[in-house]
Amino acid sequence: MKLVVVGASGRMGQALIRIISQTDGAVLHGAVSRPGSSALGKDAGELAGVGQLGVPVTDDALAAFVHADGVIDFTRPETSVEFAALAAQARIVHIIGTTGCSATDEAKFEAASRHARLVKSGNMSLGVNLLSVLVAQAAKALEASGWDIEVLEMHHKHKVDAPSGTALLLGEAAAQGRGIDLNDKAAKVRDGHTGPREQGSIGFATMRGGSVIGEHSVLFAGEGELVTLSHSAGDRSIFARGAVKAALWARDKKPGLYSMLDVLGLSSQL
Amino acid sequence: MKLVVVGASGRMGQALIRIISQTDGAVLHGAVSRPGSSALGKDAGELAGVGQLGVPVTDDALAAFVHADGVIDFTRPETSVEFAALAAQARIVHIIGTTGCSATDEAKFEAASRHARLVKSGNMSLGVNLLSVLVAQAAKALEASGWDIEVLEMHHKHKVDAPSGTALLLGEAAAQGRGIDLNDKAAKVRDGHTGPREQGSIGFATMRGGSVIGEHSVLFAGEGELVTLSHSAGDRSIFARGAVKAALWARDKKPGLYSMLDVLGLSSQL
Amino acid sequence: MKLVVVGASGRMGQALIRIISQTDGAVLHGAVSRPGSSALGKDAGELAGVGQLGVPVTDDALAAFVHADGVIDFTRPETSVEFAALAAQARIVHIIGTTGCSATDEAKFEAASRHARLVKSGNMSLGVNLLSVLVAQAAKALEASGWDIEVLEMHHKHKVDAPSGTALLLGEAAAQGRGIDLNDKAAKVRDGHTGPREQGSIGFATMRGGSVIGEHSVLFAGEGELVTLSHSAGDRSIFARGAVKAALWARDKKPGLYSMLDVLGLSSQL
Amino acid sequence: MKLVVVGASGRMGQALIRIISQTDGAVLHGAVSRPGSSALGKDAGELAGVGQLGVPVTDDALAAFVHADGVIDFTRPETSVEFAALAAQARIVHIIGTTGCSATDEAKFEAASRHARLVKSGNMSLGVNLLSVLVAQAAKALEASGWDIEVLEMHHKHKVDAPSGTALLLGEAAAQGRGIDLNDKAAKVRDGHTGPREQGSIGFATMRGGSVIGEHSVLFAGEGELVTLSHSAGDRSIFARGAVKAALWARDKKPGLYSMLDVLGLSSQL
Repeated sequence: MKLVVVGASGRMGQALIRIISQTDGAVLHGAVSRPGSSALGKDAGELAGVGQLGVPVTDDALAAFVHADGVIDFTRPETSVEFAALAAQARIVHIIGTTGCSATDEAKFEAASRHARLVKSGNMSLGVNLLSVLVAQAAKALEASGWDIEVLEMHHKHKVDAPSGTALLLGEAAAQGRGIDLNDKAAKVRDGHTGPREQGSIGFATMRGGSVIGEHSVLFAGEGELVTLSHSAGDRSIFARGAVKAALWARDKKPGLYSMLDVLGLSSQL
Repeated sequence: MKLVVVGASGRMGQALIRIISQTDGAVLHGAVSRPGSSALGKDAGELAGVGQLGVPVTDDALAAFVHADGVIDFTRPETSVEFAALAAQARIVHIIGTTGCSATDEAKFEAASRHARLVKSGNMSLGVNLLSVLVAQAAKALEASGWDIEVLEMHHKHKVDAPSGTALLLGEAAAQGRGIDLNDKAAKVRDGHTGPREQGSIGFATMRGGSVIGEHSVLFAGEGELVTLSHSAGDRSIFARGAVKAALWARDKKPGLYSMLDVLGLSSQL
Repeated sequence: MKLVVVGASGRMGQALIRIISQTDGAVLHGAVSRPGSSALGKDAGELAGVGQLGVPVTDDALAAFVHADGVIDFTRPETSVEFAALAAQARIVHIIGTTGCSATDEAKFEAASRHARLVKSGNMSLGVNLLSVLVAQAAKALEASGWDIEVLEMHHKHKVDAPSGTALLLGEAAAQGRGIDLNDKAAKVRDGHTGPREQGSIGFATMRGGSVIGEHSVLFAGEGELVTLSHSAGDRSIFARGAVKAALWARDKKPGLYSMLDVLGLSSQL
Repeated sequence: MKLVVVGASGRMGQALIRIISQTDGAVLHGAVSRPGSSALGKDAGELAGVGQLGVPVTDDALAAFVHADGVIDFTRPETSVEFAALAAQARIVHIIGTTGCSATDEAKFEAASRHARLVKSGNMSLGVNLLSVLVAQAAKALEASGWDIEVLEMHHKHKVDAPSGTALLLGEAAAQGRGIDLNDKAAKVRDGHTGPREQGSIGFATMRGGSVIGEHSVLFAGEGELVTLSHSAGDRSIFARGAVKAALWARDKKPGLYSMLDVLGLSSQL
């Protein structure tokens, strides 16, 4: 499967290039970076530390997509939306790990999925996706009158948004288990005189520091006991591996908008 | 429901007396302690700090059981086996939270359950029982070739056995999820030159100290990621509450040997 | 030492009455509750579950203080300020565990300490006070350019303020180790597009739920490594024990405003 | 400073080569691997993914050491002892991160340190060394009658010894704080009927799994409270960076056997 990596000069882009070079059945077909990037023209393999691959980094996404089978994209909402339109035109697979997308962005992905096979997830790791299934089950079994749900996350000091896409994904899983809408029940700020905790709310707490790749916990706090379900990412390559797995999985699927739960065969359990 | 507490002078016995005195539909009918106990003859309610209940502590279990509806028992294997025989004779409910029972003991409980309604569990809390279901699911989804399972527990300095009954219960749940026999795969000691970890084994690690009531974690360690499912007990009353709930549940059931998963309606999910 | 407990009908008040009744050299002399409290006139020992002590709960603080040696106070800023003035008049010991006090309140405590011996702390436990010393040392050794400091806390669902007094105390210790002013550097809210973490800031994250008594962690996040210093309170009695210890310690001291670090002999290490 | 890396083909060896290539004032002078290694003759820089460095891997340690200023060694006790003798002959710096050394080995390092400048530590990271200082202080402040000490560690599935060198280093720090001998007080195995915890003992618990680089916690468990001091290694490069820092530090020191606490200026605080 011929894959294009967009955002090729970033940390996730380089991890993707390394994983593709190690994966049977996948080959790096193109590497795209933004206009003006200092990486343009350099060999994508050498950038990623895996030796020459004969794929120079380009800023011409359309040219890179035209003979490809799929594109993997951990960039930003505005560029991911553009890439989805190009993927739809090229009728290829588009794997989207981008976070922070608005409802308008989501509608555009939906539109693109009439022609492209999109897999979109806030987190591509097996562990987090399994965790989301377990969180939904726990939220269902532990009723809101006796058990309070809190989502805690920590990431490196460079992260610019909060809570993380994965924290929101886990909060959504909890809300789904409870049969409620996360938007109505999320408590994201606590400072000063807050009053007692609102029953049925889902709290979020955020830490930032150092080079932490991603720590997430969902706590269910009852009277006299606490159940905690956690995921710790030690290595950015778990997301890259998941994304490449998603691309291979999506290759022979019908056009549509899929999630990692579909890829991992977990969607029936949620 | 008229309930007898055995081991009435211990910490769990007193927690049970307190919870029974607060529970609608339950009443303390008898309180049994071992021959020679300094508690004999004292009022069980006063012992437990809930005021006089008119139930003196006795060492005559048979007399205490004869007009009772159920007995709750967090004692020791040898006494629990005796109480099960008496409960079978009296055809009443027997809730067993005792840990450290041998295969021979288990066979005797099995025998008693032809006439009595037994509920036996290494941990009576809702949280731990839910956790065991989630652990089994995770162990099934995360294959042994890529994910190593470890069970960690911590209890107070007075605890005399290791690993805890709850740690073993969680290890059993993991083994069931994997379709293996825990006895074949448990690794309970690591000291000195151990060699690399045996694939498919389930490790146990034990900490003891202070007044910790009970901390349990099951870790699934993969390449670059870690999933951890944990329970923390902050208050011994969660076990007492679970035991009283089990007694009320078992009252109108057929004779048999049940688990807390049956009581909590979780057994179908395991 | 004759001690008065104010806020006698609350959870901390009752824990204090229990600990005083168990402590050699201390005796319950008075128990004060607010006007209109349903506890007024009842025996303080019976309220606290330790049997009759012959001390009825009163709303007349002045009368209670007049022949006492000390007062222990985990109430609210406005009442603690009043009690400090009365303690100064009576020239007795005043132990203050109240949190959420303003700069104006602090000035009033300062004034009262010309005549009374005040010990004031956001947390009376040995563990937290030791932790604050270790946090200050770590903050000094791990320079701000490479290590980010975050304070995480969790408390029960009834708590009405955030971050907790103890979280702020630990943040102050970190700021002191760094030689900075916490007010300039505290980051208490993260929601939406936050931008990258500000170097040298001290972040706070808050969780609320269940019956959690108090969990605090201070994280030092560096490049590739993380140091975490934590305290977990399993039992409210640790605060009561610390407060009674502080009262006994302060008895023969000169008037002044002391901290738990003074009581524990740790102040030279900060 | 001209540095030789021994064990050059292993994971730590490659991390060392990468860090040396990035460090001002340090240059890779030699790379040694065991006779028969498939790495022999290859360029050390290419092996480590940093491009050609003009240093072929050799199995002739003596020749590699002769014009070098220092050698960095995370190998095995038997080879580290040999390298120490060669370093003494060459009168250069020898940085030893090897763990699992016997008393006999230690005596040989002692002997070599008459002529060489040795820095030896079970863990070269700033975080762990600071932690050991804090652990010693906490162990001193929290007396053995009321506080139980436990050391918990987790490493990847390939690790062949238990407890880890770092866990032992932290246990030693706790023992030093308490003024006891760790060998007399270490409890490394708990299985079956253990009896209650021995007062004053220091417990060790070990977990193995996945690709975990190194997690260590020291717990101080008291009545009703718990203090935990932890370190988490997210990246093997923290050890390499510490080792290179130690080499640069040792260059102008007198012959002797030093620790990382000396390098980091923390030894006066222990």
